[in-house]
Amino acid sequence: MGQDHNPDVDSVFDLAAAAAASNGGNNDPLLPPARFIGSPQKPSKMPYNKYASYELQVPFSFPERTWPNKTFKRAPRWCSVDLRDGNQALVNPMDSERKLRFWNLLVSMGYKEIEVGFPSASETDFDFIRMLIERELIPDDVTIVVLTQCREHLIRRTYEALKGAKRAIVHFYNSVSVLQREVVFRKNRAEIKKLATDAAELCKDLEGEAEGIDLYYEYSPESFTGTEPEYAVEVCNAVIDVIKPTPEHPMIINLPATVEMTTPNVFADEVEYVSTHLKNRDAIVLSLHPHNDEGMGVAATELGVLAGADRVEGCLLGNGERTGNVDLVTLGLNLLTQGVDPQIDFSNVPEIRKTVEYCNQIKISERHPYAGNFVFTAFSGSHQDAIKKGLEARQMAADRAGADLKNFVWLVPYLPIDPKDIGRSYEAIIRVNSQSGKGGMAYLLKTNHNLDLPKRLQVEFDKIVQKYADDTKKEVKDEDIWRLFKDEYLPVESGGKTAAGHVVGDTTDETLKQWGRLKLLKVSVSSGEDGSDTVLKATILDRGADKNAEPVERQLSGVGNGPIAAFLNAIGALGINVSVMDYVEHAMTAGTDAMAASYVECEVGDAPESQVIWGVGIDSSITTSSLKAIISAINRSER
Amino acid sequence: MGQDHNPDVDSVFDLAAAAAASNGGNNDPLLPPARFIGSPQKPSKMPYNKYASYELQVPFSFPERTWPNKTFKRAPRWCSVDLRDGNQALVNPMDSERKLRFWNLLVSMGYKEIEVGFPSASETDFDFIRMLIERELIPDDVTIVVLTQCREHLIRRTYEALKGAKRAIVHFYNSVSVLQREVVFRKNRAEIKKLATDAAELCKDLEGEAEGIDLYYEYSPESFTGTEPEYAVEVCNAVIDVIKPTPEHPMIINLPATVEMTTPNVFADEVEYVSTHLKNRDAIVLSLHPHNDEGMGVAATELGVLAGADRVEGCLLGNGERTGNVDLVTLGLNLLTQGVDPQIDFSNVPEIRKTVEYCNQIKISERHPYAGNFVFTAFSGSHQDAIKKGLEARQMAADRAGADLKNFVWLVPYLPIDPKDIGRSYEAIIRVNSQSGKGGMAYLLKTNHNLDLPKRLQVEFDKIVQKYADDTKKEVKDEDIWRLFKDEYLPVESGGKTAAGHVVGDTTDETLKQWGRLKLLKVSVSSGEDGSDTVLKATILDRGADKNAEPVERQLSGVGNGPIAAFLNAIGALGINVSVMDYVEHAMTAGTDAMAASYVECEVGDAPESQVIWGVGIDSSITTSSLKAIISAINRSER
Repeated sequence: MGQDHNPDVDSVFDLAAAAAASNGGNNDPLLPPARFIGSPQKPSKMPYNKYASYELQVPFSFPERTWPNKTFKRAPRWCSVDLRDGNQALVNPMDSERKLRFWNLLVSMGYKEIEVGFPSASETDFDFIRMLIERELIPDDVTIVVLTQCREHLIRRTYEALKGAKRAIVHFYNSVSVLQREVVFRKNRAEIKKLATDAAELCKDLEGEAEGIDLYYEYSPESFTGTEPEYAVEVCNAVIDVIKPTPEHPMIINLPATVEMTTPNVFADEVEYVSTHLKNRDAIVLSLHPHNDEGMGVAATELGVLAGADRVEGCLLGNGERTGNVDLVTLGLNLLTQGVDPQIDFSNVPEIRKTVEYCNQIKISERHPYAGNFVFTAFSGSHQDAIKKGLEARQMAADRAGADLKNFVWLVPYLPIDPKDIGRSYEAIIRVNSQSGKGGMAYLLKTNHNLDLPKRLQVEFDKIVQKYADDTKKEVKDEDIWRLFKDEYLPVESGGKTAAGHVVGDTTDETLKQWGRLKLLKVSVSSGEDGSDTVLKATILDRGADKNAEPVERQLSGVGNGPIAAFLNAIGALGINVSVMDYVEHAMTAGTDAMAASYVECEVGDAPESQVIWGVGIDSSITTSSLKAIISAINRSER
Repeated sequence: MGQDHNPDVDSVFDLAAAAAASNGGNNDPLLPPARFIGSPQKPSKMPYNKYASYELQVPFSFPERTWPNKTFKRAPRWCSVDLRDGNQALVNPMDSERKLRFWNLLVSMGYKEIEVGFPSASETDFDFIRMLIERELIPDDVTIVVLTQCREHLIRRTYEALKGAKRAIVHFYNSVSVLQREVVFRKNRAEIKKLATDAAELCKDLEGEAEGIDLYYEYSPESFTGTEPEYAVEVCNAVIDVIKPTPEHPMIINLPATVEMTTPNVFADEVEYVSTHLKNRDAIVLSLHPHNDEGMGVAATELGVLAGADRVEGCLLGNGERTGNVDLVTLGLNLLTQGVDPQIDFSNVPEIRKTVEYCNQIKISERHPYAGNFVFTAFSGSHQDAIKKGLEARQMAADRAGADLKNFVWLVPYLPIDPKDIGRSYEAIIRVNSQSGKGGMAYLLKTNHNLDLPKRLQVEFDKIVQKYADDTKKEVKDEDIWRLFKDEYLPVESGGKTAAGHVVGDTTDETLKQWGRLKLLKVSVSSGEDGSDTVLKATILDRGADKNAEPVERQLSGVGNGPIAAFLNAIGALGINVSVMDYVEHAMTAGTDAMAASYVECEVGDAPESQVIWGVGIDSSITTSSLKAIISAINRSER
């Protein structure tokens, strides 16, 4: 495979077929026994002997690698190829309006190099580039890149497209892989290299066509991943010899993972090899152009940058041929989470996504890193609980440090990035289904309804939510939780009347529980000076123990060391025996007109038939809310 | 961070905040200048100082790593967690019907370990497991896994769910990460370790509840990626000391990348460290459970397997919390392309996808590796051309080797896998848009219409397709290409009559070109013996040079050294001067009743006003098809 191609003797097919036929599969007697429990996996009928491993296709070893000990220190140079490589892979390529919208997005995000098209191959591309130049839409600090094959009439046409541009990069390429040399070009190594250097010379010869343009070159040994790295270096160095870049006027050498063919560590080895073997390295911007055929494009890029690449070509949200180009959004935000400025503005990912989806007419997946709908969603109860605790702990740590929470270090379980930093919100974090625990429900009640349930009340209410989730087998939405909570703990809202009748149990929704026996209509409390006993008078609507009875209004009064004690004393007159086990109360909002929420754990009835049960009350008066909470507990115990 | 937690002194927040504040961002004066062309990238407003890099959060270095020099030799043990980790992350978790359908898919594909639920936390899960056992739906060679937290009543409930099972793995876990120790559990290292060993002891104590079940254990140090590897090993080894696995009765130690926090090489370093520091390693099945927060879950898994993991947990097509669990389909098919049997049947990926999308009620992306709609689609002309040549070269190589094409080594540019091996087809490979070249069009005409256009005819017709694509700015579908081709080269199909009238130019579609001047109605050819001249008689419908004239029938005759020469001689009588430059002909199908396609390149008219132009003819007679091709060229020249 390393030799010049002779189609009758040395075909890559024959060599690979022989190599593939010797694949051990899973039956290699030299392998130590696999560890497993139960029965072994069985050989499948998948034709593994049809495929030659990467190391058989491209033999290469680079144990001198240093990249695994490196970490990120700064962002690479980014180049968006959305308008070219992304666009060419769309069912409906962008029209000018969509292209311009995408261009504006890229410029506004901070991309300084943008590949804008293949103007000699497509009239649409040509016209778009003319529009950018003639309408002066290219900021001084943005450089456009145009792709061309290296034929004279195509390069001339390319320069026609560039007329009037201030600065531009002409990107030429030819495929150098073992396979393409044989099946597409039917040329040997020397002939393929000559295609590249002829192209470079042609570009140099035609520079007169680019008068007035600050012109740079980019060369891609296309299908780099299918190429012997030594040969790729040989071709690149020959091109460098023709172009003669300098540190002041560098050129780009761009390594395309045209097809992802191997694990990213092998790609990184290859990048480090090229980076350390290129001529005139300080005059070279070493670039990567990864695709995602094996689902490892992001990893290949990151390891390739550690291995020495200066520049990355990709597309927003990973559009491009087949599985797409590498995703520039994921790459940038991965850097951010490592404390490195991506030098790109990702502060509004939903807007970026909206524009990209509009222009490409392709939707991204719900689980797309950073941008997908479900990415800031935790359904699992233990995740939800940990997130809730993590957010609280972070708040406390920020308070302790006297730091602004917004800019305080982000460390929250299950959330590698603060959703707010990329224009997303906490609201989406918690969703509740039959698999969720109490953490999610508690979070939703706190976030959306300002109710901070005590732990034991969470446990109690969680059973109700779980039963509902198991019964319906659906996601329990926030409104479901709130409805279940109101139905269980709070009086029906329609009961505004004070007259007797159906007020207590009134509800228009047949699926809701009837509220119960008691309803508090009016209350007055008077305390003497010096902590003397509180006297409480209350008007209560009481249906009595019979569920079908009509409620009647009763005047009650009681005395105690506070309003709760006095109220318990008062309702003793109804034959209801209640003692309070625990009590929590909080304001629901800031300010003097805030509502208060009271949570009271009561033992209702006489032992051993008594029940320990929570009640909840909400009222603008802190006193009334606690009395309502007791009534809530009593009513629940009667149901 | 390495010390036991004291909330007032050593908070991970305070340490991380201090570390993050010292991030260099992109302004570190110690960095060598970045290489770029044009203007530098600008600092963004993204709050990078809010994030602590992974090496600050989990300091760890393992330069002894050996995994980068390894390659895949066999498939790991696979465990699907679709029914548990995948299911818990759905808006609408699966009902029993969907769960059973998913279960059947997994079993039919060959998975031998399937995590089926968290029965002590969800009644749906409990009922599903009971159904599997009671209806005897678990094949003898399949082992179910159930997840549980380590509390007595939950474990008891778990064993209730397992009653009657032949074999099962009880999977218990606790979170051991730096962050969760502080914010969720508020416990130090020793206390967290004790949670794990207490759990292990509890499991052992309750084994009596599992009578008759061949019982195994799996322990997960949850949030492994946020944990100091030394401490994770310490906890795992303490659990191993309690469980006391043997090579004959091993246990699983499962390392969850609960949140993906770093590049996959660092994860692999950690896996290799754990693999080489676990006690009793030959009694341990070392497992990975990766997620995909940074879009590198597949890479992390593959490098982790190289680093020593025996087993992988994941979900089909990457469902799961947030960005999902690692995708078992991509992992398996990546192995296949490296010549390793995945030991799983992926021969019908469209069916797998259909079932997974039905059960999860989530669609996968168009660009999902192996399974997405666009993955075997090449829009770029150069890609299409290379694929076409690659398929032909492979066919030739297989013929040369006398091999069956179906099983012959797969090496085709831009297609890392044979679509047919996974139940997909070539038909989808080529799509044509305004960015495509002639390769795609030529492929489609060959594949779908059995027309193998000569190269110069491809160039000619490509201009017509490109103009149409540029005008419509839409994907050019196969039917569009066929319509354009027929309109340009072939006679209108409606012209069945032989009478004069509107036959020649007849078409019901106003957008189509009028066919032109001539139509061949009848032809007879007679040759004498011994290669003497051919005599040809033809009936032609001729509209004449005036486009609006009525066509008239003419009888023509001519003589030549073959039918083409005789026909050219005959039409000279109409004042049309044609010479043939090139000629290609092929059968369109096998068999004696095959149609023939003829392509003739003609110079029509007198120099210097002559045109060089192609004509195409299709007929069951090889003679008639070539004459039709000449008429096609003449008619095109007259338009």
